Amino acid sequence: MISLDKKDIDNLAYVKKINLVNSVTGYKSANLIGTKSKAGITNVAVFSSVTHFGSSPAILGFVLRPTTVIRDTYDNIKETGVFTINPIFKSKIKDAHHTSAKYPKEVSEFDKTVLEEEYKDNWEAPFVKEAPIQIAMNYLEEYEIKANGTILVLAEIVKLHVREDLLEEDYLINLTKGEIAAINGLDTYAVPTNNLRLNYQRPKENKNK
Amino acid sequence: MISLDKKDIDNLAYVKKINLVNSVTGYKSANLIGTKSKAGITNVAVFSSVTHFGSSPAILGFVLRPTTVIRDTYDNIKETGVFTINPIFKSKIKDAHHTSAKYPKEVSEFDKTVLEEEYKDNWEAPFVKEAPIQIAMNYLEEYEIKANGTILVLAEIVKLHVREDLLEEDYLINLTKGEIAAINGLDTYAVPTNNLRLNYQRPKENKNK
Repeated sequence: MISLDKKDIDNLAYVKKINLVNSVTGYKSANLIGTKSKAGITNVAVFSSVTHFGSSPAILGFVLRPTTVIRDTYDNIKETGVFTINPIFKSKIKDAHHTSAKYPKEVSEFDKTVLEEEYKDNWEAPFVKEAPIQIAMNYLEEYEIKANGTILVLAEIVKLHVREDLLEEDYLINLTKGEIAAINGLDTYAVPTNNLRLNYQRPKENKNK
Repeated sequence: MISLDKKDIDNLAYVKKINLVNSVTGYKSANLIGTKSKAGITNVAVFSSVTHFGSSPAILGFVLRPTTVIRDTYDNIKETGVFTINPIFKSKIKDAHHTSAKYPKEVSEFDKTVLEEEYKDNWEAPFVKEAPIQIAMNYLEEYEIKANGTILVLAEIVKLHVREDLLEEDYLINLTKGEIAAINGLDTYAVPTNNLRLNYQRPKENKNK
């Protein structure tokens, strides 16, 4: 194994450092966050930090850094209080990834990619058309992380749209069936084709497999 | 598509609700967190919320609920200030998942599964032997989320061990090559066998694929 301590990591060249530290956590969720400014300009951007915070009520969080391209997403959420979360899926991976390019605020990524806006129930923020899961989110609160100034945004699920064939009898959404992607690092996408479902685990008396 | 609003979700039976809300974010990172109590009892438990918070310094976070089995992990971290993060990999998925069973505090999951403790550099917390990535973490700070009382723990990478053949030239860790798993919902594991690496994206003038 190769071993690197804190100092070794801090001293790495920029690209090596961000590649390494972005891949140590294992696969990350691959989502597109859709927003619209008060002036009516839409935005859609890749986020790999959407995380489950609770089921009752249904709360998700994601991390952003105010100084990067994803500032548009934050500004729009602060202006309107709403956004959408849509998973990245196999047939649109390249265009989804392209939303990470740094376009000026007045340019919508929907105009620069094959991704299309979709509106449902008069929800102000755009969904990504054809996404097998589409979630309408309502901003709740945010935390500024002292250690590095990043912001954790927490939001509640207001409405959830799921492709019917992905929903198992007990309401697990089968991501594999939906050809939903996961992110490795910053720019690598994997679409699992198999999965193994295990059951709820209870203590056992002995050490057996 | 099936559509559920906030009230529909809140009113779902418990198992359906947790299955659904735990799978809407897409694939989640699949990690084992290793800790040791001051009394010397080790603990290892599955976490699907380990998230990248920053590369410089290298900061990771994870979410926990004080009222569940994972309380041991939290208590040990608060006692010692340290823990380890180790990805779940193909040959150990079943035993890794079994660590979610609710054992009493005085029982180590290492004694109930084929997972083995490994110690390096006198780091107090146990690594998971044979894991292709092993990370020594130092507790930094925590945030109690007002919306639901969950706790976000932030910690810094102190030392990182990576299997040499997984490290690409530019330091992306190739998770696919490491047969590292991702989690779908609460109990389903996927091990991607292919990935697509894209490059850094710059704005383009036209809408082309």
